[in-house]
Amino acid sequence: MASSLAATETSSAQETADLEKNIGQAERMQWVLNAPEPPSMWRELRDSVKETFLPRGRKSSSPKDQPSGRFKPVVSVFLAMFPVLSWCRDYSASKFKNDLLAGLTLASLCIPQGIGYATLAKLDPQYGLYTSVIPPLVYAAMGTSRHIAIGPVAVVSLLLASMVQTVQDPEANPIGYRNLVLTATFFAGIFQASFGIFRLGFLVDFLSQAAIVGFVAGAAIVIGLQQLKGLLGIAHFTNRTDIVSVLKAVWSSVHHSWNPHNFILGCSFLSFILISRLVARRNRKLFWLPAIAPLISVVVSTLIVFLTRADKHGVVVIKHIKRGLNPISVHDLEFSSPHIGEVAKIGLIVAIVALTEAIAVGRSFAAIKGYHLNGSQEMIAIGCTNILGSFTSCYVATGSFSRSAVNFSAGCETAVSNVVMAITVIISLELLTKLLYFTPTAILAAVIVSALPGLIDINEACYIWKVDKLDFLACAGAFFGVLFASVEIGLLAAVSISFLKIVIISIRPGTEVLGRIPGTDTYCDVEQYPMAIKTPQVLVIRVKSGLLCFANANFVKDKIMNWATKEEDEKKGHGMEKVQFVILDMSSLMNIDVSGLAALEELRRSLVSNGIEMAIINPKWQVIHKLKLANFLNKIGGKVFLTVGEAMDAAASAKIAAI
Amino acid sequence: MASSLAATETSSAQETADLEKNIGQAERMQWVLNAPEPPSMWRELRDSVKETFLPRGRKSSSPKDQPSGRFKPVVSVFLAMFPVLSWCRDYSASKFKNDLLAGLTLASLCIPQGIGYATLAKLDPQYGLYTSVIPPLVYAAMGTSRHIAIGPVAVVSLLLASMVQTVQDPEANPIGYRNLVLTATFFAGIFQASFGIFRLGFLVDFLSQAAIVGFVAGAAIVIGLQQLKGLLGIAHFTNRTDIVSVLKAVWSSVHHSWNPHNFILGCSFLSFILISRLVARRNRKLFWLPAIAPLISVVVSTLIVFLTRADKHGVVVIKHIKRGLNPISVHDLEFSSPHIGEVAKIGLIVAIVALTEAIAVGRSFAAIKGYHLNGSQEMIAIGCTNILGSFTSCYVATGSFSRSAVNFSAGCETAVSNVVMAITVIISLELLTKLLYFTPTAILAAVIVSALPGLIDINEACYIWKVDKLDFLACAGAFFGVLFASVEIGLLAAVSISFLKIVIISIRPGTEVLGRIPGTDTYCDVEQYPMAIKTPQVLVIRVKSGLLCFANANFVKDKIMNWATKEEDEKKGHGMEKVQFVILDMSSLMNIDVSGLAALEELRRSLVSNGIEMAIINPKWQVIHKLKLANFLNKIGGKVFLTVGEAMDAAASAKIAAI
Repeated sequence: MASSLAATETSSAQETADLEKNIGQAERMQWVLNAPEPPSMWRELRDSVKETFLPRGRKSSSPKDQPSGRFKPVVSVFLAMFPVLSWCRDYSASKFKNDLLAGLTLASLCIPQGIGYATLAKLDPQYGLYTSVIPPLVYAAMGTSRHIAIGPVAVVSLLLASMVQTVQDPEANPIGYRNLVLTATFFAGIFQASFGIFRLGFLVDFLSQAAIVGFVAGAAIVIGLQQLKGLLGIAHFTNRTDIVSVLKAVWSSVHHSWNPHNFILGCSFLSFILISRLVARRNRKLFWLPAIAPLISVVVSTLIVFLTRADKHGVVVIKHIKRGLNPISVHDLEFSSPHIGEVAKIGLIVAIVALTEAIAVGRSFAAIKGYHLNGSQEMIAIGCTNILGSFTSCYVATGSFSRSAVNFSAGCETAVSNVVMAITVIISLELLTKLLYFTPTAILAAVIVSALPGLIDINEACYIWKVDKLDFLACAGAFFGVLFASVEIGLLAAVSISFLKIVIISIRPGTEVLGRIPGTDTYCDVEQYPMAIKTPQVLVIRVKSGLLCFANANFVKDKIMNWATKEEDEKKGHGMEKVQFVILDMSSLMNIDVSGLAALEELRRSLVSNGIEMAIINPKWQVIHKLKLANFLNKIGGKVFLTVGEAMDAAASAKIAAI
Repeated sequence: MASSLAATETSSAQETADLEKNIGQAERMQWVLNAPEPPSMWRELRDSVKETFLPRGRKSSSPKDQPSGRFKPVVSVFLAMFPVLSWCRDYSASKFKNDLLAGLTLASLCIPQGIGYATLAKLDPQYGLYTSVIPPLVYAAMGTSRHIAIGPVAVVSLLLASMVQTVQDPEANPIGYRNLVLTATFFAGIFQASFGIFRLGFLVDFLSQAAIVGFVAGAAIVIGLQQLKGLLGIAHFTNRTDIVSVLKAVWSSVHHSWNPHNFILGCSFLSFILISRLVARRNRKLFWLPAIAPLISVVVSTLIVFLTRADKHGVVVIKHIKRGLNPISVHDLEFSSPHIGEVAKIGLIVAIVALTEAIAVGRSFAAIKGYHLNGSQEMIAIGCTNILGSFTSCYVATGSFSRSAVNFSAGCETAVSNVVMAITVIISLELLTKLLYFTPTAILAAVIVSALPGLIDINEACYIWKVDKLDFLACAGAFFGVLFASVEIGLLAAVSISFLKIVIISIRPGTEVLGRIPGTDTYCDVEQYPMAIKTPQVLVIRVKSGLLCFANANFVKDKIMNWATKEEDEKKGHGMEKVQFVILDMSSLMNIDVSGLAALEELRRSLVSNGIEMAIINPKWQVIHKLKLANFLNKIGGKVFLTVGEAMDAAASAKIAAI
């Protein structure tokens, strides 16, 4: 089979050889001119809607998965909705051993993190545990990623709290606040599932990678600052999240009411967790150490507080965590609230941010392991996760950066590790909540802070700066927006700068002079390829933009005229000859608008009045269609060529004929 | 000289022949890889600032214009600022004869239009005449267009009135209103001159041609509706400009207080003007008839009213027009007004709209006659015109569509026709104002209405619809925005839709499969060129976008993977062989961002895990630089080629070697 490529090439070459011999440049010009009509906007719209609503499913690679018989369509939709039905049949004991280990590691990290993130979301600690039960179970049935760890995450907890508290004060009315959080979770789930069903996955792409890096780093610092409350044992803290307000609040509290015991306890265990991570980095076999270090810290510190009764001496402890499984919360959703519109908006923003994190995590592990992540199915899975979660007292869950990495390095094979984790958390909720009474909150703060360095990716920021300065601007805008204004303003800044960048780059007018690359018939930018050969009297120019539109067409036109006449002046000075042909290579141009067509027509007139002929090269589908509609091809005497070389030949022979 | 092109080609071909023989594909690959670094963003920024502030002047073509000696730089700046100094030396009596005729024709049109437009701008009638005196004189000295007719224009008058009246009610405080109008004129002039000095001409391009067509057509209808006041002789009219409010006001007035004499008078002379235009269209020699028809209408109708004393029977007449030349108004500018910010904003918007009209007019006549219009100098000239105008009781003047066309068809040669017009208006201001006492306002309304059909370009709108549906959306948005909301909202709609269009087109993800055009080494879209030949086992794909960025990169990646694996499935079904190479043609790609690089890396990994090799073709300057920074070239094993053909050869030989 390997040899067949060359063989097919040869045979097809022989077949077409006779045909191709008879094809002249004139015929090729006809091909350019008589291309079939490009699809109209309506057809493109219809096709894209069709593609959106009637997705082609990716055929499963193993034939035994193909259902047959009368129920084929129903069964295949069912199989697509619940990938677990496909992979569970291949599940084996050896895979379970790996998943069990990974799941237990995950649970040991998830329990302290969950309690901490619930505090960050300004909910009671048990909500973090609830959110680690139902979402992983739902995701395990519906998700297509094998490595994602589902549960509460830091950034989403922060975002949710910072937005919902503008609607309802969590301290004044904790029940009302919780109900609104659950309602926002429900809306987030609905939005996520709709994105998946209607294939609106591109919405997730509206956050550029650079913006995410800046946003997440800013959020990590903000989260770290929020933990100062727990680490310092401060009673009264600010509700705002920007760095200035938080530092002011800390500064004023430090003078009044803080307890050094909290700080010492928190910092020692924080150091322990960080050191365990360093140890693991030196010795790869100890990868489980940093994963269970948080749990060890919780157990040891709880014991210390219990034995020394330090809670009587100012160490703040969690106290009561409600025992028992997730209560049903369907009736707590507040659809008749006057803030329902506001809550739905919060749901939308949280939905996008949560999906962005989950899909980024899922994609990177899928690419490492070389399997396909079905983006739409992922959105549906996470959407259902949150809808069902909102019925069972869970707030927004998504794929966590840090825990997914732990899951991966612990060797998980399938989503069963999420099930193991969920079961472990269920057991803890039933049996261990009383033991957490004496857990100091400073330890939870330490656990959260220890997860933050992974969110601040300085290397990536440096790389972005090196590669793309405008991208870095989006990154910095998101970072400083989150840090100094608010989480929403940071997001808004990131999205706005990203789109402004697209406009700036798209309309940046540019033209490049082309020369022939020695030894080929290819014409390239003479600045990029200094060895390219220019032909005297002929100016070959390519438009350096995908779109010739109102915002850049006149600039491009003036620049080409400048080139054509500047060369004229220079050449006069050097006794050289003036430009007689302008060959405009349109191969980069994807589209043109009415202003662009008008500018081309003006360019043609100006060139003609300077005695310069004009030819155009390789216009793309939309462009040649519009040039025809605008009658431009007739105006330039049909001088349209497929390649610059052919235009050169035509120019040379026209000159010879004119002698 | 004509033969030298071919000769040079031959000699240069001979010179390079030996060189080129020795150049192999490997060396060319090195050229691609080792291109010099593209200019950094800082250098591009610096260059563009330098180009902005230190413009290369276009060298004047006649050598006698070149100043010499010590004062050379000063003199050349002076010559550039006042083009009159260059062309007046070539001025001849025969040219003057043409200009005189054109100027008189222009004046006969300008006097009734000027008075009418002043009413539209809610100023006293004499301000329209003032604005026809100073601006044409200043422009004649500084402008570079030979055919533009400067003075008050309908759209700008409407825009100015509709915006300034939101700040100051013209009926409650006419003096204050006038002063704000003059202040806005001053700001408009300052903005226009700055655009010219700082080469910010691209700001004018922000209004796409489609948007202008829609905006001007909408404004024409709004202006026509405003004239119903004059035509029907209605005393109380609405201040709003949208069609619904105006029709309501007209409807309620029709029941109370309107005088049919006004309507009959206005309509008969409107018919006369329109019929004179039809006659002239049949008989080209009578071109002067429609141009002086408005003046004839004014004279005849004034005589009729004077003789029949119709003003006693309800025909509304102009009454008093202040006699005498423009009074100085420097001290009327209100810089200490509390609305100064608002007025400056109005100045900015008016400046852009006025410049757009003037430059569109100037460009089209310059292109017809084949001379160069210096955009920056035009902006400076119109800016100075309005600054000096605001000192001498003129409101915003610019180049008029309709009068410039009359000027052109009356055979004007230089801007002297503007001077002739200004002098004629001066004489009228000194001697004829009393005679205009009995001129009925219905005639002014008829003169304005008769100029409107030229502003509604249905053919152009049809053409826009045919060529570009999204452009038509901008056009329709502007049209309906002006008609149903307000002039500013129409402008805003036009600009927003135009930019949204750029974003949509730029990020629309697309890929095309390429095939070889028979008889060439060129690879083109197989849908555009159905005769293109695809090579089995090799998938050649081009990205159909100028920018691979966060908003489209993942889509493009998924699409390519779909192509690669869909072909796989199909080929399995047909007993064909699977894709072994994906060749990614990047020649259309101008730039790539961090998300785009990440998507490329993911694509590479996915392809590798499917056993498919990947090569990239002809990356542009910025792209190859960023691919190098991201270390992507090493990851694909340096498989970068200049042309698809070379990649094909490499793919074929790799396969042969692998046997």
